[in-house]
Amino acid sequence: MRSKPLLLLVCVLAAWSSLARAQTDPLPSWNDGPAKRAIMQFVRATTDKASQQFVPPEERIATFDQDGTLWVEHPVYTQLMYCLDRVPAVVKTKPELANVEPFKTVLSGNRAAIAKLSLPDLEKIAMATLSGMTVEQFQQDVRQWLATARDPRWKRLYTELTYLPMLELMMYLRANGYRTFIVTGGGQDFVRVYAKEVYGIPPEQVIGTAGAVTYGYDQSGRPILTKDPKLLLNDNNAGKPESIHLMIGRRPTAAFGNSTGDRQMLEFTKAGGGERLAMLVLHDDAKREYAYGPARGLPATKVGTLPPALYDQATKQGWVVISMKTDWKRVFAFK
Amino acid sequence: MRSKPLLLLVCVLAAWSSLARAQTDPLPSWNDGPAKRAIMQFVRATTDKASQQFVPPEERIATFDQDGTLWVEHPVYTQLMYCLDRVPAVVKTKPELANVEPFKTVLSGNRAAIAKLSLPDLEKIAMATLSGMTVEQFQQDVRQWLATARDPRWKRLYTELTYLPMLELMMYLRANGYRTFIVTGGGQDFVRVYAKEVYGIPPEQVIGTAGAVTYGYDQSGRPILTKDPKLLLNDNNAGKPESIHLMIGRRPTAAFGNSTGDRQMLEFTKAGGGERLAMLVLHDDAKREYAYGPARGLPATKVGTLPPALYDQATKQGWVVISMKTDWKRVFAFK
Repeated sequence: MRSKPLLLLVCVLAAWSSLARAQTDPLPSWNDGPAKRAIMQFVRATTDKASQQFVPPEERIATFDQDGTLWVEHPVYTQLMYCLDRVPAVVKTKPELANVEPFKTVLSGNRAAIAKLSLPDLEKIAMATLSGMTVEQFQQDVRQWLATARDPRWKRLYTELTYLPMLELMMYLRANGYRTFIVTGGGQDFVRVYAKEVYGIPPEQVIGTAGAVTYGYDQSGRPILTKDPKLLLNDNNAGKPESIHLMIGRRPTAAFGNSTGDRQMLEFTKAGGGERLAMLVLHDDAKREYAYGPARGLPATKVGTLPPALYDQATKQGWVVISMKTDWKRVFAFK
Repeated sequence: MRSKPLLLLVCVLAAWSSLARAQTDPLPSWNDGPAKRAIMQFVRATTDKASQQFVPPEERIATFDQDGTLWVEHPVYTQLMYCLDRVPAVVKTKPELANVEPFKTVLSGNRAAIAKLSLPDLEKIAMATLSGMTVEQFQQDVRQWLATARDPRWKRLYTELTYLPMLELMMYLRANGYRTFIVTGGGQDFVRVYAKEVYGIPPEQVIGTAGAVTYGYDQSGRPILTKDPKLLLNDNNAGKPESIHLMIGRRPTAAFGNSTGDRQMLEFTKAGGGERLAMLVLHDDAKREYAYGPARGLPATKVGTLPPALYDQATKQGWVVISMKTDWKRVFAFK
């Protein structure tokens, strides 16, 4: 038996509830579309105790590539900018490097020549600029650099160039009991400096390419850890699931990447039983960010391409492609 | 103005509160003494927001050596028993090893000869028995072995030979917002199999000596991780703080060990600012467990000794020595 006032109340409550739902949309920077729906459906299925796909909280592991997945990687990785900027300081302590390549080219400031440096040259620069100091000295130096260095296009701090929709996604997953990990080809020590502040991710949940450190003592006998010019873990391609095994020891339930370097991590994630989410960020938005990745007929570049083979694998294995252009209402937090 | 009934109520409440306190002693297997008092004082100082020594929850990291600190390591490490028991299965797949040392000696069953195997021989056995399978096959094999293998003295499963006071200590720390990590010279993959069930420690909080794994595909194209006969991290001595940096990226607030292999971890922990707790388990209880460690005039053995230099450093740097004999009311959970 329904009285009119009761019906009115029901209508008001329904309207209020729908409003509340809209207001608490956990992914406000995402357009409604297959990507957003896949995320919401995945979270519902894996966190509802009544669901066949329920995943216990301790198993809720979500891994994120960083460069090109959480922040801008184009035209040059941020960490490489840091390494190039550090070359003068390194040469100051080792003047003999001033006339040795590739340091000579970097010191020349000739951008065209620097852009042409080979991968082995860049590795030499990385080894020289990322080692020789204690881990605390390194952290302090990175912190200082990040506080002032700006990217050339937006004239913003690099830490402002994170993708707002991905920050929302990480918060949404954490609000649902997921632990978010970064699994990056970038330097583990580098990313750990700002990961908490920028992504809400503590150091122990940052996995990356890692150099060895050596335990020793300073002049006053205090224990120190010094960064060595020796690669310990290469966290790209197959290195990603291998490092996930080493550092977490569990298979992720969800994984997010944007390039061939993330292929094995996404494969490995999807190959687990039950509900798994694998997503690829496609850079197809030349206006708001960059367009690269030939999968949708866009020109390929050297960095972060999404080649047809990867796009095909995504389709075949049920990975969800995120189009920056159509899936994201906003790209950055700044206007 | 106190009425008699009110005074009675006050007395009853006081008695009840003291009883409740006794009943909720978080360390019931510890005798009252300097070790127990140091633990309680440390937890109070680092978790009381009003304390100068307050440590924020995310920084509350406690690291534990395993062999000799959390469970019996004498006369032979448990994992070595596993490796020896696995030799016949390895020889079955590689019959050519039957006549090759050190496998020949292990197969002979001659205990005296096996006890005399050199460290390089034992390493050969470890490499051969801990590699070549997928990580899942390995986990399953370890689980099966642990379910039936028994130690020769107590005739108990190895997982029963954990020290009850240390289990209580870990629970007490966790109840106070500490995250407990194992940092062991033993195999990371091995310890992760039972750490959750036995210690309440999840795989991502087990750090240990680690072999490399290689990502690949099985015959049906499914991704697999295969254990390689290649040492990646040696988690002893200086390797402990180095691995802590790699896997956690924070300095522990508290650390627990029992041998020279733990020296650098304890040093590194104590060298941090503010309140830090470093403790050494001394095996001085021949009756209930074993007595080894010359620090208090006891005979040294090859395994887990506490040499005078370590004991001196403990005294000088304010590490607290835990005497099994006097500090522990009970050693094991079983009677």
